[in-house]
Amino acid sequence: MSGTITMTASEVEDLASGALVAAGTREASARALARAVAAAEREGIRSHGLMYVPTYCEHVTCGKVDGQAVPEVAKTAPGALRADARNGFAHPAIDAGFEQLVPLARSQGVAALSVHNSYNCGVLGYHAARLAEAGLVGLGFTNAPASIAPVGGRKPVVGTNPFALAVPGEGAPALLIDQSASVIAKSELMVRARTGEPIPEGWALGPDGEPTTDPAVGLKGTMAPSGGYKGFGVGLLVEVMAAALSGANLGIHASPFSGTAGGPPGTGQFFLAISPAAFAGDGFGARIADLCAAITAQEGAHLPGQRRAANRARSDADGIPVPADLHARIAELAGGR
Amino acid sequence: MSGTITMTASEVEDLASGALVAAGTREASARALARAVAAAEREGIRSHGLMYVPTYCEHVTCGKVDGQAVPEVAKTAPGALRADARNGFAHPAIDAGFEQLVPLARSQGVAALSVHNSYNCGVLGYHAARLAEAGLVGLGFTNAPASIAPVGGRKPVVGTNPFALAVPGEGAPALLIDQSASVIAKSELMVRARTGEPIPEGWALGPDGEPTTDPAVGLKGTMAPSGGYKGFGVGLLVEVMAAALSGANLGIHASPFSGTAGGPPGTGQFFLAISPAAFAGDGFGARIADLCAAITAQEGAHLPGQRRAANRARSDADGIPVPADLHARIAELAGGR
Repeated sequence: MSGTITMTASEVEDLASGALVAAGTREASARALARAVAAAEREGIRSHGLMYVPTYCEHVTCGKVDGQAVPEVAKTAPGALRADARNGFAHPAIDAGFEQLVPLARSQGVAALSVHNSYNCGVLGYHAARLAEAGLVGLGFTNAPASIAPVGGRKPVVGTNPFALAVPGEGAPALLIDQSASVIAKSELMVRARTGEPIPEGWALGPDGEPTTDPAVGLKGTMAPSGGYKGFGVGLLVEVMAAALSGANLGIHASPFSGTAGGPPGTGQFFLAISPAAFAGDGFGARIADLCAAITAQEGAHLPGQRRAANRARSDADGIPVPADLHARIAELAGGR
Repeated sequence: MSGTITMTASEVEDLASGALVAAGTREASARALARAVAAAEREGIRSHGLMYVPTYCEHVTCGKVDGQAVPEVAKTAPGALRADARNGFAHPAIDAGFEQLVPLARSQGVAALSVHNSYNCGVLGYHAARLAEAGLVGLGFTNAPASIAPVGGRKPVVGTNPFALAVPGEGAPALLIDQSASVIAKSELMVRARTGEPIPEGWALGPDGEPTTDPAVGLKGTMAPSGGYKGFGVGLLVEVMAAALSGANLGIHASPFSGTAGGPPGTGQFFLAISPAAFAGDGFGARIADLCAAITAQEGAHLPGQRRAANRARSDADGIPVPADLHARIAELAGGR
């Protein structure tokens, strides 16, 4: 089958949800994850859209994810929430945590949520943006199986560990930063390894710690940190927040996010939600607008999150293009639901 | 005068404090800043040690800093503190804020402090480390006059804006990350501009946005962000937290930290203090030790903060070497106090 079909975000969500439920995911968890899948498609982040759904389903089937898990959220201190994802998907645990986090941050000025026994949370910025949509500055961290070595070393210690910052705007976030600690996503190496195309020097290191242009050698070695030791430092910041401070598995002990082996990865997330009203005095929105304008006024410069916002607008106007064979594959997983 | 004299940290503190008071700084503010100067000397961070004291004194004299300012700290929400440094030094405002921040974070699980109408806070890690010494995870941000342009642009939008993370250990922090958003400190360009030595490509860009090896051209242009757009993203994160969210001046509006022109810079800081007890469950210390060991076990790899810790031990054993002419200059500023 070839060609492309056009879907609405709501249709993408229903398709993904049906496949997840058919694989053995409880309805509420499937919905939480499917909403994020639809948001990724809407923002043009195909790698975390429908393309990922067969893997999610496979991970429920093989037991990497407990589809029936019901997350538990405990309030451990007046400004502190601790979520146990119970080896289910990350999304329902984060959703359950955010229900309490948002009002708590508004009343406390700042509040935080840690998530453990968790899983790959998909696009981290998706979660941070939801805090911004509630009028809060959202700062999120998520860890992953180790793939980046410290500068001078050869063994991976931290994952590609992104952080995300979302700043409230009119409706959508005024600013959304969502960036990993590596030069490039590991999936780019996987793509090149399949096609046999070399990678640019600086993307990855071989098992000997030396730079390589062979994607297969890079996949056996480590991902290069962005900006050398400072990129590793960002990855370490994320590892401390999302794993050590959340009570989750460190990346050096987590099972892979890909494949079916190793059981639940047990990785973690950490989210800070901050009320501008408590810290910023007057003119928070004006200062953010001023800062963003200093970037957008420069030809050739881009505001982080600008592309995703443009993709959202285009998806809402023209629909979301989905490869027909991918649609058929997921519809089959959904069993005609 | 030439040669080196050996001082204790306490002697460095007294020397710096005397000069600051003689310049017109109130005793408590001078002490707060002098403690940080002594800590920088003890950790081998000469650029923020006694070498900076004549500039601090000059900034009190010229009115960039109000030496007599008494900082005000307001509790704006159950977990939120807002400090007004009132155009005095940053250190006394941060100290006053931390007095309330530490107990607040312990009881609330997480608490935060914003500082506005502030100034260069020196070594950011010094402040974050004090939170770690109180058993809290400390995450700090401080902004600076704009010197880094967005990738693709030519005009600076954010400063070299560091973040710092300090993790509690036995006595000293187990881990201390303190890194700026630029490839290299601006002071390195100033040193090379004086000696006429070229800079490596990749450190700075000229006013035309093109890479340069001429430090003088770089000083007229912008500092290169570490890792390209991801380094700029880190600088933007810091700008949002330390300036926009703190009610401080954005870097694009702040007067310079060097020279005597422009009045108070009015920059800001933001500190998060997080209690591991509220978020981490059991084994926080063990996970941190495990993470650190994965780095230190690798020959050639370094744990962030390791060098500073080694310098502290050496300074305590052998004393702090201070150039005799610098000592004499500051003693003269202190007027024989």
